[in-house]
This record gives sequence, C-alpha cells and structure tokens, in this order.
Amino acid sequence: MPIGAATAAAGAITDLAIVLFAAKVGDEVFKRLHQPALIGEILAGLIVGPAVFGLVEPGEVLDVFAELGVVFILFWVGLETRLDEMREVGRPAALTGLAGVVLPFAGGFGLALALGESTETAIFLGAALSATSVGITSAVLDDLGALGTRAARTILGAAVIDDILALILVAVAVGIATEGGVDALSIAVTVGLAFGFVAFVSLGGERLIRARPGILEAPKFSESPLLPAVILCFALAAIAGEIGLAAVIGAFIAGLIVAETKDRHPIEEEVVPLYAFFAPFFFASIGIDLDLEALADAAGLLALVTVVAIATKLAGAWFGARGLTPSEASIVAVGMVPRGEVGIIVAGIGATAGVIDAEMFGAIVGMSILTTLLVPPLLRRLTGPS
Amino acid sequence: MPIGAATAAAGAITDLAIVLFAAKVGDEVFKRLHQPALIGEILAGLIVGPAVFGLVEPGEVLDVFAELGVVFILFWVGLETRLDEMREVGRPAALTGLAGVVLPFAGGFGLALALGESTETAIFLGAALSATSVGITSAVLDDLGALGTRAARTILGAAVIDDILALILVAVAVGIATEGGVDALSIAVTVGLAFGFVAFVSLGGERLIRARPGILEAPKFSESPLLPAVILCFALAAIAGEIGLAAVIGAFIAGLIVAETKDRHPIEEEVVPLYAFFAPFFFASIGIDLDLEALADAAGLLALVTVVAIATKLAGAWFGARGLTPSEASIVAVGMVPRGEVGIIVAGIGATAGVIDAEMFGAIVGMSILTTLLVPPLLRRLTGPS
Repeated sequence: MPIGAATAAAGAITDLAIVLFAAKVGDEVFKRLHQPALIGEILAGLIVGPAVFGLVEPGEVLDVFAELGVVFILFWVGLETRLDEMREVGRPAALTGLAGVVLPFAGGFGLALALGESTETAIFLGAALSATSVGITSAVLDDLGALGTRAARTILGAAVIDDILALILVAVAVGIATEGGVDALSIAVTVGLAFGFVAFVSLGGERLIRARPGILEAPKFSESPLLPAVILCFALAAIAGEIGLAAVIGAFIAGLIVAETKDRHPIEEEVVPLYAFFAPFFFASIGIDLDLEALADAAGLLALVTVVAIATKLAGAWFGARGLTPSEASIVAVGMVPRGEVGIIVAGIGATAGVIDAEMFGAIVGMSILTTLLVPPLLRRLTGPS
Repeated sequence: MPIGAATAAAGAITDLAIVLFAAKVGDEVFKRLHQPALIGEILAGLIVGPAVFGLVEPGEVLDVFAELGVVFILFWVGLETRLDEMREVGRPAALTGLAGVVLPFAGGFGLALALGESTETAIFLGAALSATSVGITSAVLDDLGALGTRAARTILGAAVIDDILALILVAVAVGIATEGGVDALSIAVTVGLAFGFVAFVSLGGERLIRARPGILEAPKFSESPLLPAVILCFALAAIAGEIGLAAVIGAFIAGLIVAETKDRHPIEEEVVPLYAFFAPFFFASIGIDLDLEALADAAGLLALVTVVAIATKLAGAWFGARGLTPSEASIVAVGMVPRGEVGIIVAGIGATAGVIDAEMFGAIVGMSILTTLLVPPLLRRLTGPS
C-alpha cells in the first residue's frame, strides 16, 4: 500500500491534522483563561495560516471542511430546537429579522454615500452590514447551555428571515453591478423559491411526520438513522445553496425536521462527534483566511464600518425584540451582531463584480471578524449569572 | 447569509450528498439481497459516477473524503486490536506478508516479460500485484464480527509487513523508470525510516503509555478524548504518507496506541459516527473512479493479470499462514487478495513515469477492482457458519 505521499489526499490530511491540532490547543488555552474557546480556535487558525507561520494555506478542501463545520453546527442547533417553540417567538423573530436588516442596510448605504462612494458600492456595503452569521452565536449559546431559551429561539428565527431579506439585497446589488439594472422577475422567482423552500420544508415536512409518524422508519434502515439524517441535512443545505440561501439555513431546517422524530430515533449522541470533528475547521478557517496587511491598510475605514455595523444591528435587533424582556432583548441584539463568513461572502461577490475596491473589501472582512470576536465575551456576560 | 451557491463549497456539499445517498441506497439494497453492503456502495458509486449517470465527477474533495474513509476504517480496526494479541501472531503474520509479496511480484514480473513488455514495466506490474488493500478485508471482517480472530490479526500484521516490502519495490521501480537506475542509499533511508516509524511508534508509544499510564490524561482535556485521538490518527497517517508508506498504516498504529488507553477513555462509541460518515466515500469512490471503456479495451490482458494476481496471492499467503489451522489459513489467504486503491496508486505512478501504457493501466485498475469485489462474498462464506 505504498506511496501515500504521492497522492494529493495525503497532503490534505497533513493540513487537516495541523488545523485540528492548532484549534484544539487554542480551545484548551482559551478555556483555561476563561475566554470563549472559539476565539482560541480562530486565533489558532491565524497562527498556522499565512498571516503568521504559513503552515497551512487556504484551499478548496479546507473551505469544504469549514462549510461542513458550520453546517453541522446549525444542524445540531436545529436538532435542539422544537418547531412549536419556534412558533411561539414568530412575531419577535420576524420583527428582529426585519429591523435587523433595514437599519444596518440604511447605515451601510448612508456611510458609503457620505464617503463619496458610488450607489452600487453603497448597496453592497449595506447588504454586507445587513447579513448575520448565526453560526458563531449558536455555538456560543450552545456552549453556555442557553440554546433552549426564548432569546436563542428568537435569534434563530430572525436569522432565517434575515437571510431571505439579505438574499434580496444581494440579488438587487448584483443585478445593478453586473447588468446595470434590476431584473425584477428573476429576483421575484428567487425570493419566491426561498420562501417556498422554508415554508414547505419546515411546515410540510413536520405535517408529514405528524400525519404519518412512522415515515422515517418506513424503509427499515438496518442500522442507526445517522446517515439518513446527515443525507437530509446535506440535501437541504445543497438545495438552500442552489436557490441562493445560505447552506446553513437548509441544515438548520433539516435539524428541525429530524428533531420531530428524535423521541423514536435518538441520534443526538451520534451527531456530536461529527460536530466536534468539523466545527473547529469552521472557526480556524476564519483565522486562516485573515489577511492582516489588508486590514492594516484599511484601518480607518474599518473602524468606521465596524462602528456603524455594530450600532445599527444592535439598535435594529433591539427594536425588533422589544416585545421580550429587556434582558432577552439585549441577548437577541448582541447575538445578531456577528457577520462572520456571511459578510465576507457578500464582499467577495462585490469584489468579483468590480464594485468593491481592495480597501473596502479589507474593511468589510475586518468588520466581519471583529464583530465575530467581540460577541462571544459579551454574550457570555449577558447570559451568565449576573 | 446569501449566495451560498456562489461558493465552491456549496457545490461540494451537493456532490457529497449525492454520493452518501447513493451509497446508503446501495448498502441497504445489498443487505436485503444478503450480499456484502460495501459492494452495493461501490456499485452505487459506479452508477452516480461518470461511468453511468455522471452526476458526480472525481475530484480533490472526493479523494480526500475517500482517503479519510479508509483512514477511519483502519483507525477503528486498530482500536479493536490489542498489541499483545498482534504479537501472538507475529511469526505467521511476517511469513504471510513476505510470501504474499514475493509470489505475486514474481508472477507479475514473469507475466509481463512473457507478454514481451520491458523490464521496467514488468517491475511495475509485479509491484502492483504485490500490494494488499487491507481496508476492504478489514471492513468485511468487522461486519462479520470476526475482527478479534487470530486470522484477522494475522492479516493486519501481514498488511504492515506487506506495505513496507511493497514500498521497497515501488521505490526501486520508480528509480529505474525515472532515473534509469536505483539509488540504493535513498531507498535504504526510506526503508529505514519506514521500519523505524512502525517500530518506534507501535512499541515505543505503547511502552510510554505503560510506563506512565496517565500520560494521555496529563493535559486534562476539558472534553472527550475524541479530538486528541483523531489528531494522533491524522498525524501518524500524514507521517506515514510522507515517508512513503500508506496513510492507513499510520492510522492503524494510532488506533493500536489509543486502544491501550481505552479502558480509561472509552472513545469507540464516538469514533463510530465518523467511521459511518466517511467510509461510504471510500467505497463509492472506487466505483466513481472506474472507467468502464478502458476496462473493456483491456479485457484480455485484464483476465490474465487477474488470474495471476489471485493465484499468486492466495498461494503466497496460504504458504505464509500454514502454521495456523487450515480454515484460518484460508481466511488469511483470501483476505490478502484485494488490491483495492493500492494497486491503482501503483499503476498511476507507473503511468506518470511513462512505463505503463493505457491498456496495462486499465488492466491493473480492473484487477484491483475485481479482486476487491470477489473477496467479500468468499470471506463471508469462509467465516460464516459452515
């Protein structure tokens, strides 16, 4: 069985081993310092990545492992959530999602115009600021044992709404940037598909299971239901991606559906090792992809963008969640702040379309990471014993 | 969180979902037909791959998932094996490994010369025939609950010896093909490293744990020992690959080491979901990578090569294992027959070096797959109630 080194796969395993080892060390160190472990994992990625030692380069394989990391995080979060509990927070979640998009969009749009940027660039900055990365917040709340709270459910519901609205904004922004105008029909179709997907899968899937409680057992799987559940998760993640939503929204909905059957099929214990294995790649990749020089070049703009991003999201989400108790509304407002990989993806689309220059790109990426790093300690304080 | 579809990762998740779904269907169908499930998974890969529907193309990401599949299979097998039980079969394992390389090499070498091929080509065919893919046999024996038997331990030990000997053969073949001669020093260094690695890690690692039973607990990991164990597995797999051994040999040794601590750290239950998730990619990839046209073109040569491959490996391994009972020796002999991915890798190296033409390449690939498909039903019959 010779010459494993001759295959590309062997090199990839070396990279995966380095990232996993570094992330685990960062995790353990930060836990001992009583800091959020995921920040230790992000910094570990920064250290082994091109920014410091260059042991690991970004690439397709790491991207896929990172994406599966956040997919398994949201799948796990869906597993821990009951649909009827989500419905209880329907109104505050919808309001939070809406206000948490409108204000940041207005803030980003206004800031860009005030700085003398074009309308196209302004739309992209607005769209980047309106995004929410629910992966980070979910992982922190799970860590703190707070996933079952009303605030956590409001954040999750708001993230779904937020995602659909941000999809519209980016579709508009891309239309203007690449075709000089908006193709209303294609946007309407995309949005209709997105809403239809969420509604059909989450409501229809649940009804189907309620009406025929044995349906997931029907094929009489000879072993555990883990693989069928993971296949459902990947399939809905892929479909969500195909229609322009984030893959994690599909994974979350898959978790919700499987959760409705979990009394009969206990699979949570089997999902934990997959979550534990993949999630560190998601956090470490944020650090690996970080370009410190571009950040330094954009320091002034970065500061401005970050302040606007935090202030508008806090205000919008707080406003949307004001029907909850004040302490719940604070958790929701802070929990919606991280932009994570989502802001970076929007900036990347803008850069590809030629309407985001290098400095603005660096500022959006830096803002996405800063908001991601700031939130875990704050959330920990807000949910901890006061 | 928009435009997941814009990232390469989303496309990869679609591919992974298709492969996992197809493999699961193949698995379930073959179990109901009372056939080995892994053959169902290989055929499922064939059907979704370029050979039939072309839903999934081979690529780097699938290669890495396939490689991790066989890495987790061998890690699991190592976890299920105790070092002192391995030592009991040291002598038959060493003999089986040796005779299981010498005869197939001689057979392949002789066949190629008889067909009028060059000496270089003959060395490659001999090396390809001397390889053993222990992944398939391990999975079948695990399925049958026969991993703990003396025959299974003999196969595993023989596979390690076999791998080191095959490494020498391929190093010699590559040296002759690319430099027109053998660099004895570099081969000696490689082989020394390989033996040193196996001896140091498996014996030294175990002694260290015996001498300081708490060493794996020393860092007081805050959670389960799963990630440290997986990191050890990947690290040894990567090192094995770097020095020219198969990555799976490192994974197997890592499993052996972790097994010595498993009374204190029960991690088997946590490894099972990773094994269940990744292994189907290994089996399905064999089918995805299969080029039926090349096989058809090489049908005559394929038949010859396959007959020689089976006859020489059966005879050599049987001879080496003759110290065991006759029924154990039969299981060992059959269990050493699959060439799996290993024969394909050797053929690929030969093709890259320009000494294996398209027809010979097709024949070696076909032989690797045929030997892989033939063995599971035979092993099942040999180990089943007679």
